[in-house]
Amino acid sequence: MEGSEGQNFRVRKLEMSDKSKGFIQLLQQLTVCDSVSDKEFADRFGEISSLGDDHVICVVEDDRSGKIVATGSVFIEKKFIRNCGKVGHIEDIVVDADARGMQLGKKIISFLTDHARSVGCYKVILDCSNENRAFYEKCGFKQKEIQMVKYFT
Amino acid sequence: MEGSEGQNFRVRKLEMSDKSKGFIQLLQQLTVCDSVSDKEFADRFGEISSLGDDHVICVVEDDRSGKIVATGSVFIEKKFIRNCGKVGHIEDIVVDADARGMQLGKKIISFLTDHARSVGCYKVILDCSNENRAFYEKCGFKQKEIQMVKYFT
Repeated sequence: MEGSEGQNFRVRKLEMSDKSKGFIQLLQQLTVCDSVSDKEFADRFGEISSLGDDHVICVVEDDRSGKIVATGSVFIEKKFIRNCGKVGHIEDIVVDADARGMQLGKKIISFLTDHARSVGCYKVILDCSNENRAFYEKCGFKQKEIQMVKYFT
Repeated sequence: MEGSEGQNFRVRKLEMSDKSKGFIQLLQQLTVCDSVSDKEFADRFGEISSLGDDHVICVVEDDRSGKIVATGSVFIEKKFIRNCGKVGHIEDIVVDADARGMQLGKKIISFLTDHARSVGCYKVILDCSNENRAFYEKCGFKQKEIQMVKYFT
């Protein structure tokens, strides 16, 4: 099972054509994400792509259905502390509800973590709910601080 | 006291010349930050500046001593969720141990939060220790999630 099925779930970088493969609908499983027009998508895709390795969004496409079933992002923050160190910030991890149990979340986290390491980050961080803590611990993360938020209305 | 003293502690954006005003020494009160060469500083300053409004570091200079006594940063993450929304990430807040009690931390947070709002973010977030939670609550923040971290060795 692992052999042939594994090949159907490769992690790769987001492409423009993924909009028509259910990428936005997948994000809607995570949080508020109304319909995005083709132009809005292209503009945002261009803004993020222009950052190169400093902002990477990855996806898993199910080769059989042609649908995007998992995604996540990491952007690289450049600091002065830690001797002009860099930190990877992982954001917007989501796995399709119908594609759970295939380790896709772990694959996504591994891809993003490897990317952060490869560009020289000294650490990678993310914020999650208490319910998802155990999953990230399995991925090698440890709880450190608390996240504070202020919403603008 | 508030009138004349207040003018000595204006928040402004980081400038190249702040390296010679104790900016790195101030960061050393926050975490590991060995000496940074002039070239390393200039290179990193240039990288961050090239992002314009998408990565802003601010400082407070004590006009009497010519020393940087407080700093903080915010960078703007561009997303697809929330209708191609933007999030401000606040990082590396530090107030000189000798300059506490003058609301400089609040001024820094206010400057960075106002910046995030002005560029269209729907929220601003930060990670902090449990001990600093009350301070950020006074700044209008609420605890939401937990921060997970993975260090590279």
